[in-house]
Amino acid sequence: MPKVNLAEKLAQFSSHWDPHVVADYNGNDVMVVKFQGDFPFHHHETTDDFFLVLEGEMIMDVDGESIPVGPGELFVVPKGVTHRPRAETECKVLLIEPKGEPNTGDPATAAAKPRI
Amino acid sequence: MPKVNLAEKLAQFSSHWDPHVVADYNGNDVMVVKFQGDFPFHHHETTDDFFLVLEGEMIMDVDGESIPVGPGELFVVPKGVTHRPRAETECKVLLIEPKGEPNTGDPATAAAKPRI
Repeated sequence: MPKVNLAEKLAQFSSHWDPHVVADYNGNDVMVVKFQGDFPFHHHETTDDFFLVLEGEMIMDVDGESIPVGPGELFVVPKGVTHRPRAETECKVLLIEPKGEPNTGDPATAAAKPRI
Repeated sequence: MPKVNLAEKLAQFSSHWDPHVVADYNGNDVMVVKFQGDFPFHHHETTDDFFLVLEGEMIMDVDGESIPVGPGELFVVPKGVTHRPRAETECKVLLIEPKGEPNTGDPATAAAKPRI
């Protein structure tokens, strides 16, 4: 039951849009991820999508708006709502999704979510 | 579906051990809370307990150890495990628990968890 230092985990990889699992919470993966560029628009049929920005700025495109989300700000996209996270420069994010949920909303295009 | 600025939410109250709900994630309360002093030892029968330190230092007493947890560090206490968070000086924490879960593990002593 160790504590998890998020910066130490983020230092272990450099890839973008590649979430890495750092802890478990009630059947959810708690992940760190680096965003840069545009992710595809997508939605999750059965789950909310939890984002907390740790460093940099994420833009959340949702409901026809582009919402800047900075360090210490969180954004929960409700299930079923189409959204696109993007970042003009690298942004570091804490992400929570249920285990097995494809990060793209589609198993065919989902990232592997390795544990570190 | 607004973003949530955690520092702005934390500025709205000064009480300790008094979690305030700032967002929802799949039936969980996402909360901010200020710790100072010692909380009672307790456990949660049916849920893990998620802590992310935002500012200051939390000490987690668990399994006979006292583990310092600082800013950018998270700690998930598995369900059923007795633990005690404490803080020598004020510490600000992001806390996630299922809706309705008493923060003390006991409805008789639980905080109200107002929404802000």
